Amino acid sequence: MIDDSGTTLTLGIDLGGTKLGLALIDRTGGVARSERRAIDAEGGPERLVAAIAAAALELVEAAPAAVGSVGVGFAGQVDARAGVVRSAPNLAGWADFPLVEALGEAVGRPVAILNDVSATTLAEHAAGAGRGVDDLVVVTLGTGVGGGVIAGGRLLEGAGGYGGELGHMTLVADGRRCRCRNRGCLEAYAGGWAIAERAREAVDEAPEAGRALLAAAGGSAEITAAAVALAARAGDPLARRLVEETGRLLGAGLVSLIHVFNPRRLVLGGGVIEGLPDLVAAAAAEVRRRAIAVFLEDLEILPAALGADAGMVGAGLLAHRKFGSAAVEAELGAER
Amino acid sequence: MIDDSGTTLTLGIDLGGTKLGLALIDRTGGVARSERRAIDAEGGPERLVAAIAAAALELVEAAPAAVGSVGVGFAGQVDARAGVVRSAPNLAGWADFPLVEALGEAVGRPVAILNDVSATTLAEHAAGAGRGVDDLVVVTLGTGVGGGVIAGGRLLEGAGGYGGELGHMTLVADGRRCRCRNRGCLEAYAGGWAIAERAREAVDEAPEAGRALLAAAGGSAEITAAAVALAARAGDPLARRLVEETGRLLGAGLVSLIHVFNPRRLVLGGGVIEGLPDLVAAAAAEVRRRAIAVFLEDLEILPAALGADAGMVGAGLLAHRKFGSAAVEAELGAER
Repeated sequence: MIDDSGTTLTLGIDLGGTKLGLALIDRTGGVARSERRAIDAEGGPERLVAAIAAAALELVEAAPAAVGSVGVGFAGQVDARAGVVRSAPNLAGWADFPLVEALGEAVGRPVAILNDVSATTLAEHAAGAGRGVDDLVVVTLGTGVGGGVIAGGRLLEGAGGYGGELGHMTLVADGRRCRCRNRGCLEAYAGGWAIAERAREAVDEAPEAGRALLAAAGGSAEITAAAVALAARAGDPLARRLVEETGRLLGAGLVSLIHVFNPRRLVLGGGVIEGLPDLVAAAAAEVRRRAIAVFLEDLEILPAALGADAGMVGAGLLAHRKFGSAAVEAELGAER
Repeated sequence: MIDDSGTTLTLGIDLGGTKLGLALIDRTGGVARSERRAIDAEGGPERLVAAIAAAALELVEAAPAAVGSVGVGFAGQVDARAGVVRSAPNLAGWADFPLVEALGEAVGRPVAILNDVSATTLAEHAAGAGRGVDDLVVVTLGTGVGGGVIAGGRLLEGAGGYGGELGHMTLVADGRRCRCRNRGCLEAYAGGWAIAERAREAVDEAPEAGRALLAAAGGSAEITAAAVALAARAGDPLARRLVEETGRLLGAGLVSLIHVFNPRRLVLGGGVIEGLPDLVAAAAAEVRRRAIAVFLEDLEILPAALGADAGMVGAGLLAHRKFGSAAVEAELGAER
């Protein structure tokens, strides 16, 4: 489905549980214009799609060039081939919703979808910290832990398109309960919710040691990963110990990915990394202590470069790739 | 480098620390003829290459059809592109040995190499338990734990060609020391050496409970994974507990691979599985308890089909693929 109509822009949409990002994306992943809106997910998918389409068409009309197609990065498990949302932990009523069809009708353009973290991975690969390498692992640490993999120049998809759930590798076989069904997942230690939970437990156990953390958060039950980050930067010993332990465990988890994928570059992003940028160096040090030597030879571990824009950029690149941008297709190595 | 000379066979070689397997392999992975020899690794790589070449040429001369090229599955880390052995834990003097060049001169045919477990993976994919699927994970549990991955129809290689070290995923972050530099690797629980080590520790701790195991092995220091398997089959409670625990831990490790790769099929092979075939069902049950539901929808967990021949078959298929068998190339999905 190559579109030779001279399209130079696509619309990249990042759709999460509470926020909507839209951006006009050129063939190299550059952002021509973007905007963010809060969304009201209460009305169900049809109403939300109508709202997205209205915002999209506004942006398209004001665009400096033709906008030929739309890509959506969706925070949930999607069947990219069928164009259907399979499950959406943060959006009620979206399970098995045919988003590609519904949004395509509403905006009058072809639509492609993928998981939001896969979108981030495509973006970091094409235009961010993963640029120029064929073997890339991206791990995003936000409330949860997600990720994506470029292996031999191609996005890892898996049989059903769900591949790349890097946060749900088992890191401690009999460890902490995860929000998924597993025990001891990487996410159950290094996800934002898990850092907060570990901090609450530590403070409840030793309130004296966690005084600064308690004061900053306003109470044990109010402790968040952001509060832990603040307290650690302020020198609170308990928060610092938690952050050190998180770096060590994150490194132990990254070793799994390094041994499995032998990446040239490993990129860490998401809100937890933005709040605790030292985690990158701490995890890298742990990786160097644990990994088999040959896997370290040409490995770089870097922070993500595109920040919160990555989802929109990747969704826009997906649309270029799927509906008409041979240049981007070659860059992404989609057909290698 | 397509060879149109009508070659219908290749020579597949499986080279381990103590054994050499050679087989004539057709384009579909069928074995026309095979043989195994003990090897003397003491004399260094040059002498061993001369011995391999002599055995190879003998087999080639007696072959029912032309043998155009040679593939070698090597038990160690190889740089497949450069044709060089990088490290060989079980063969002294082989680090950085240019095997492709040396063996190619000796046999007068083009030679390709890959890691022995990658060879097993290619073989199970083309002609074994992974036949017909594009997303396949193969885990081999022998003395160590290795593996290989077919993702989107292609063998996962990684930046340096070392990808697929599935045995060295971290399974217990602060767990047992592995033979690699990491702690708590899957191999440190489910590899043959680790099963034996865990059994020795358990018997030393509770000799009464391990009576049958002690009697079968002849002493704590003599306990091997094979002895554990025998004792478990004979009903020894300590051995059975060890096997159950191994199945549970193996399952927890497979969950990591399932969440990362979303495979259609997961194949378990190697000596440990052959000795303890019940591990397949035990690990699969643990996977069903732990994995995210969508990943289980179309997943099959099966024992390997090709047994000890797999390394030779995969090496022979690699040669077909690299030096002249368009049919196999398509079947392997190498260019997808």
